[in-house]
Amino acid sequence: MLSFQKLLRADQINKGDLVKLFNRADIYKDKLSKSEKITDLDGKILASLFFEPSTRTRLSFETAMHRLGGKVITVEDGSSSSTKKGETLEDTGRVIDQYADIIVMRHPKPYSVEEFSKYVTNPVINAGDGDNEHPTQSLVDSYTIYSEKGSLENLKVGFLGDLKYGRTVHSLVNILSKYNASFKFISSEYLALPDKLKTVAKNNSNSFQEYQTVNAEILEDLDVLYVTRVQRERFDNQDDYIKNKDVCYLDKKYISAKNNSIILHPLPRVDEMDKFIDELPNAKYFEQVGYSVPIRMSLLYSLVNL
Amino acid sequence: MLSFQKLLRADQINKGDLVKLFNRADIYKDKLSKSEKITDLDGKILASLFFEPSTRTRLSFETAMHRLGGKVITVEDGSSSSTKKGETLEDTGRVIDQYADIIVMRHPKPYSVEEFSKYVTNPVINAGDGDNEHPTQSLVDSYTIYSEKGSLENLKVGFLGDLKYGRTVHSLVNILSKYNASFKFISSEYLALPDKLKTVAKNNSNSFQEYQTVNAEILEDLDVLYVTRVQRERFDNQDDYIKNKDVCYLDKKYISAKNNSIILHPLPRVDEMDKFIDELPNAKYFEQVGYSVPIRMSLLYSLVNL
Amino acid sequence: MLSFQKLLRADQINKGDLVKLFNRADIYKDKLSKSEKITDLDGKILASLFFEPSTRTRLSFETAMHRLGGKVITVEDGSSSSTKKGETLEDTGRVIDQYADIIVMRHPKPYSVEEFSKYVTNPVINAGDGDNEHPTQSLVDSYTIYSEKGSLENLKVGFLGDLKYGRTVHSLVNILSKYNASFKFISSEYLALPDKLKTVAKNNSNSFQEYQTVNAEILEDLDVLYVTRVQRERFDNQDDYIKNKDVCYLDKKYISAKNNSIILHPLPRVDEMDKFIDELPNAKYFEQVGYSVPIRMSLLYSLVNL
Repeated sequence: MLSFQKLLRADQINKGDLVKLFNRADIYKDKLSKSEKITDLDGKILASLFFEPSTRTRLSFETAMHRLGGKVITVEDGSSSSTKKGETLEDTGRVIDQYADIIVMRHPKPYSVEEFSKYVTNPVINAGDGDNEHPTQSLVDSYTIYSEKGSLENLKVGFLGDLKYGRTVHSLVNILSKYNASFKFISSEYLALPDKLKTVAKNNSNSFQEYQTVNAEILEDLDVLYVTRVQRERFDNQDDYIKNKDVCYLDKKYISAKNNSIILHPLPRVDEMDKFIDELPNAKYFEQVGYSVPIRMSLLYSLVNL
Repeated sequence: MLSFQKLLRADQINKGDLVKLFNRADIYKDKLSKSEKITDLDGKILASLFFEPSTRTRLSFETAMHRLGGKVITVEDGSSSSTKKGETLEDTGRVIDQYADIIVMRHPKPYSVEEFSKYVTNPVINAGDGDNEHPTQSLVDSYTIYSEKGSLENLKVGFLGDLKYGRTVHSLVNILSKYNASFKFISSEYLALPDKLKTVAKNNSNSFQEYQTVNAEILEDLDVLYVTRVQRERFDNQDDYIKNKDVCYLDKKYISAKNNSIILHPLPRVDEMDKFIDELPNAKYFEQVGYSVPIRMSLLYSLVNL
Repeated sequence: MLSFQKLLRADQINKGDLVKLFNRADIYKDKLSKSEKITDLDGKILASLFFEPSTRTRLSFETAMHRLGGKVITVEDGSSSSTKKGETLEDTGRVIDQYADIIVMRHPKPYSVEEFSKYVTNPVINAGDGDNEHPTQSLVDSYTIYSEKGSLENLKVGFLGDLKYGRTVHSLVNILSKYNASFKFISSEYLALPDKLKTVAKNNSNSFQEYQTVNAEILEDLDVLYVTRVQRERFDNQDDYIKNKDVCYLDKKYISAKNNSIILHPLPRVDEMDKFIDELPNAKYFEQVGYSVPIRMSLLYSLVNL
């Protein structure tokens, strides 16, 4: 039994929820690896509503539902439908609620999924509402760390790149703050972690350090390095973009042989890291995509059977 | 055995068809409410072809097919495909006929589904061809009335809003004209029921009345109130739109405590009714969406097994 | 066991592959005709990625997967997704590889499917990469001929229309060159078969003839006539288009009663043939679409179970 029926924000997921979700995800991961038939959501329907396209997130959820033996109805690009006729999100919610047993929704407008979910009786999962929240990415990130490191407790975790706008960074910092982490934040001053989150991280960690340029020494003893993309559209001019980006560029030479960190990235990536890092055993960003399936299976099952 | 294999127009559905379709829909409604597994269309494929997007209608049909244990192939927005290469609807029909066991199609052009269906050997359902027809909406409407009122016979039915262009109004008037209805039509003069339908309704009803402004008294003794949206795009200027719309606005105060009518609406709605009506037990427009699933299941099954 | 795990080009398919694929397709064709339940890919997922829409090809593959008891995740029009955020095809490949058991991909850019497939561990099928390749159309074409004529050996085959740009013509010429064909090529000089393919066809056939205008006599003793569309966009002006098109126009009068050829066309067709040919028993272009399902089922199954 999870502590929520509608997953709208990462901070709804407490430590007990994580334990339950991870345990079931482990079972599914094992069954998937053995190609065992799973029928846990046989006969159930997921509505996968993307009012803004996102191939990776949508296909991850739909794969998860199919692997559970369930069915999927999809809106691949809802920017062109009912909403154009002036229907409110509330009415759309009440309509879809008649069809599906669980709803996953992405929408470009912040808080739109919450608005939508108010009149839905079935479970709802926020798959990204603009710049606001994308709570299942945090589940994927933390489940990847848990699987690769054996636990979330007492980890040394570095965050590199855009720590100001990166919503996945904020959510993961919030989660790891409950597990005695040691934090290193590496970004230009302009892209630093917001003050509110700095306070959370300082007050709930073994250690807290900030850096404005990445180098080998900072990364040396990390357990986890979480990299994010610096987005061009955040800057007024090209020079500022380059300047802010370059201090966060992850060169392969920074990852020495004795560096045991796993490197994660929420993807898509563009040019924030050396491509040759892909060849290192540290690179786990595609495995991270793989972990997204069992953890989302676990979430779908748990919400439908709450 | 239904009287048609291709459902293109509402007037193809006779009283015998309604009895068969409603009976099977009742069985499915019961099974759905008990989450019983249904495999009646196991192994069958529905082609859901939307050459114009319509989320509610498409997902209703796809849900119905999935609930029957069937599979779905989808064109979510066909405005961008083969037809662009100059393929005729006839050829598209002959192609899709090779893939699916039954086809549901929406297209912006009137009579296009009929044209398409001519060379299709499998069953075809018109899910809306421009301003022309949308016969399964009439099935949903009449099945909702039948389920909520116990019968279609001898009902007092009011129609409010755009009675001129509303194709769902026309179809429902045609159907209820076979069941000794008493009709009340409420709209501005400009949006009144077309003369041809007036004749049908007058000649086939217990009583026939017209009103040009809505009020509590008119609605008091109705069994069913069917509300439709007045569409802005029907008017040359904003003033005309407002004038025609305001006389049809459904205020909550018109629905008194002793009013037993069920209120239906084909959706989407915009601002043609008081939002607080949602809280009344009379409001059944979202239940109406719910009824769309078993009645469409019944139709899909009956056509595939004709 | 096929000779390839990723099908990117028609020339990867050797004679042994064809035997295996045709044999299994025959079994599926038989089961489909008897509506027998097939569960050969039960629990498996096909990713159907169309970065350029193609309803016929996409629905053919998805139908094939559903008929095998498998599941499908779809990108109907990928021109609007991740790639817009700057993700490389390589990264997209590594992501989708985590979800699906087999991937079918169409993309407007030549060689893009090959690039994509390099980092995919699961099987990949090229469903068209711009003007470059569309190998499963050759499978459909040759399986249709095999089914209708009983064998691919020693056939008299005519090609009519655009032999210069038609990639399906090139692939089929390559395949039939392995089976002692007698070739007739009919097209304007401008749209003639490229020299390289002429050499292949000349050196690997019982006979080789070229014509610049179609007539009844040329077609009289053919086993197979393969017609393609002359595309307007290949010409600078309307006059050139008309001139090149008219010499290839297939009139019904060219197909006499004693003509036993089957007429094939990769579709869509526009106005390159007399519509009344549809009524002749020779016309097999819609049956050709029907054959696409069992042969693609055979390919999907064989690649997943390599």
